[in-house]
Amino acid sequence: MQNAVILINAEKGRINSVAERLAELTGISEVYSTCGRYDLVAIARTPDFESLATLVTERLNQVEGIRETETLNAMQVHSRHDLETMFSVGF
Amino acid sequence: MQNAVILINAEKGRINSVAERLAELTGISEVYSTCGRYDLVAIARTPDFESLATLVTERLNQVEGIRETETLNAMQVHSRHDLETMFSVGF
Amino acid sequence: MQNAVILINAEKGRINSVAERLAELTGISEVYSTCGRYDLVAIARTPDFESLATLVTERLNQVEGIRETETLNAMQVHSRHDLETMFSVGF
Amino acid sequence: MQNAVILINAEKGRINSVAERLAELTGISEVYSTCGRYDLVAIARTPDFESLATLVTERLNQVEGIRETETLNAMQVHSRHDLETMFSVGF
Amino acid sequence: MQNAVILINAEKGRINSVAERLAELTGISEVYSTCGRYDLVAIARTPDFESLATLVTERLNQVEGIRETETLNAMQVHSRHDLETMFSVGF
Amino acid sequence: MQNAVILINAEKGRINSVAERLAELTGISEVYSTCGRYDLVAIARTPDFESLATLVTERLNQVEGIRETETLNAMQVHSRHDLETMFSVGF
Amino acid sequence: MQNAVILINAEKGRINSVAERLAELTGISEVYSTCGRYDLVAIARTPDFESLATLVTERLNQVEGIRETETLNAMQVHSRHDLETMFSVGF
Amino acid sequence: MQNAVILINAEKGRINSVAERLAELTGISEVYSTCGRYDLVAIARTPDFESLATLVTERLNQVEGIRETETLNAMQVHSRHDLETMFSVGF
Amino acid sequence: MQNAVILINAEKGRINSVAERLAELTGISEVYSTCGRYDLVAIARTPDFESLATLVTERLNQVEGIRETETLNAMQVHSRHDLETMFSVGF
Amino acid sequence: MQNAVILINAEKGRINSVAERLAELTGISEVYSTCGRYDLVAIARTPDFESLATLVTERLNQVEGIRETETLNAMQVHSRHDLETMFSVGF
Repeated sequence: MQNAVILINAEKGRINSVAERLAELTGISEVYSTCGRYDLVAIARTPDFESLATLVTERLNQVEGIRETETLNAMQVHSRHDLETMFSVGF
Repeated sequence: MQNAVILINAEKGRINSVAERLAELTGISEVYSTCGRYDLVAIARTPDFESLATLVTERLNQVEGIRETETLNAMQVHSRHDLETMFSVGF
Repeated sequence: MQNAVILINAEKGRINSVAERLAELTGISEVYSTCGRYDLVAIARTPDFESLATLVTERLNQVEGIRETETLNAMQVHSRHDLETMFSVGF
Repeated sequence: MQNAVILINAEKGRINSVAERLAELTGISEVYSTCGRYDLVAIARTPDFESLATLVTERLNQVEGIRETETLNAMQVHSRHDLETMFSVGF
Repeated sequence: MQNAVILINAEKGRINSVAERLAELTGISEVYSTCGRYDLVAIARTPDFESLATLVTERLNQVEGIRETETLNAMQVHSRHDLETMFSVGF
Repeated sequence: MQNAVILINAEKGRINSVAERLAELTGISEVYSTCGRYDLVAIARTPDFESLATLVTERLNQVEGIRETETLNAMQVHSRHDLETMFSVGF
Repeated sequence: MQNAVILINAEKGRINSVAERLAELTGISEVYSTCGRYDLVAIARTPDFESLATLVTERLNQVEGIRETETLNAMQVHSRHDLETMFSVGF
Repeated sequence: MQNAVILINAEKGRINSVAERLAELTGISEVYSTCGRYDLVAIARTPDFESLATLVTERLNQVEGIRETETLNAMQVHSRHDLETMFSVGF
Repeated sequence: MQNAVILINAEKGRINSVAERLAELTGISEVYSTCGRYDLVAIARTPDFESLATLVTERLNQVEGIRETETLNAMQVHSRHDLETMFSVGF
Repeated sequence: MQNAVILINAEKGRINSVAERLAELTGISEVYSTCGRYDLVAIARTPDFESLATLVTERLNQVEGIRETETLNAMQVHSRHDLETMFSVGF
């Protein structure tokens, strides 16, 4: 599983609708509306790096109301959880 | 459950050891070493806001090798997953 | 009581009207028009974290004339005053 | 009453002790440890502008462990509360 | 006398007219068109802090052609001149 | 008369002594300790541009405790006062 | 052969089309769509410095959808490959 | 093949030796010493994403004299060249 | 002779025409189109400081297509050449 | 002739000595000590691009007291002067 943290600023009146639209995209597991210098943080979890690339370069930019995104691609994961099993089993 | 995304820059030679130390802290579910302007991103998931505050203001700053942290506290979560159940059941 | 400091830049001709509108919102106790790099600083004091999240993600962004906001969520409060009693009793 | 919002970054291991020291200073009514780009936010409330100037230029800089401060001096206050009475009566 | 240094960026074709308009405002003693990262620097000298606040929050923002202002409020003055007498006598 | 606005950041514990030292330099008419992103603002008023250059490149940098300076050289002055006469007569 | 690394930000909905257009320009050997603070990175490899200058100052700016470019001109190349032969032979 | 563009600032007196050390690392195909805001740009070309992660998180940080690195991971490549064949055949 | 270095960013499609227009202005001796964070650098060489001020505050801002300028006024010149004679004799 | 504009920040007490050392280097025609965000601006004029690269990557970094340099390499020159003849004839 390939993970990425996507930092997002959206147009002021559309932050909630952008969050909802992003959360529906395949490959995005969670979207947080956050305090601080970014409006939203999305966590992407895709089967491999190619799916992540498609998600970020093609589908993400079609969501209206996004002003800026910056993708922090995960090179290593440190966790006591088996994230891959958790998110594939799901709840 | 209270979530937060913590952006971290560490001393150059100690990024991996900082990541490992953080991942062992109660309340930190995942630590990603990332490309881009931050060295590490940690995801905190605590029972309530008070636990998050204790984690960030007291325990996080005791990990040696951290240069800068910026906590993005989640005000809302949008997800098709039931993150709370997932991370309390665990794997 | 959950406190937050909200840093705000507004459109040039509307700083005063934004300040007045913000000060009327439930959960905002004070709005300062300030010297320096921010036009306004609002102090939010809400019963709990959920109310703060609703205030910031839903009601704040509906005030017209705001260009940028950055919410600094308080994790701990150090004060010789009993702020909670003061602001619930009010004057 | 003259109000000011003071944005503070402190040395990593000393954030809590700086917060406690600041909260004891006459003229500082509250100190928040915050998420986001500043470690601490202090609210100054002094009888007049001269007291504020003395607080910021002389006493604040003697607290050890402070790396950077930026004072946002309030030019106007918008509030449904009578802050002056509240903080002079105190609790 | 309350002094403040106001850093100003103006719309490109209107720097001179903004400078002239500012210099006519009561409370502004001098406006410099400057080299470097700001287009103009205005010096405000008002009888007290309240007059400064009115000048900055109400009258300054009505001058057309201003893009951004940042007010650096003086907390102390160090000078071999008696600035207060000089500027009240005037020339 | 050549005017310049000099923006200064000083070492934390030495802001006041730097201000006092600067105010004693020939060619510096006023030093303000300010709120906001600069610690001090000095106003230079010299007979001609050469004196300003000597002041800034040679004498200013010998004052201990200065971390950073940025000189905003005035190209034009807009003022209802005759600053040149005022500061040469002095008080 | 003269090499340069060109950092590019494009309009949100047009990143892929800008990348394709750039990759067709003579003198651009590769265009990467990247994670992080730039949308695209193009590598220019031209016969000499004059060709690079023409590419950057004339042809690059005609590609629609580019918001900002910053050219990092290579002064030296360290490589175990003979890049000049590789890219002139091509594949 | 996984590509990445690595932006690097090095200690002033050691730029050339850092460039030479980096160019010897398996997975780094080219290092450019560049004009502009970065001292060096390295191009990484590894068999897969895991090798890139190991290169960046483990081996890169062991080169002495590096002050800061920022890895721009390539999600897509647009090129008229068959880069994979070119760099595996080599010259 | 008064020298100044003027850093310029222009509208993307008009960099060359801005450069040509600037080079025709009396007082501008050279305009370079540059790699890096500025599009153009102009060198001003005027008989005295007043001419420079007029050039920068009045004539420069009338050239269409300029987005931002920052003038770095020279306080001292170190050169083995007699720049004043060179540029007054001209070629 | 290859031109470049080199923006330099030096250690506070050594600006003048750095300027003098730079002005003695072959290939540097002028060094200006400047107002504004850079301490010094050097103009390099070398026979070709290779000489510029050697100057910047090898000789410049050996001058003690330099903190940061950023080279803006000229891609085109617009001038009514024949700079190449002027600087080769010299005065």
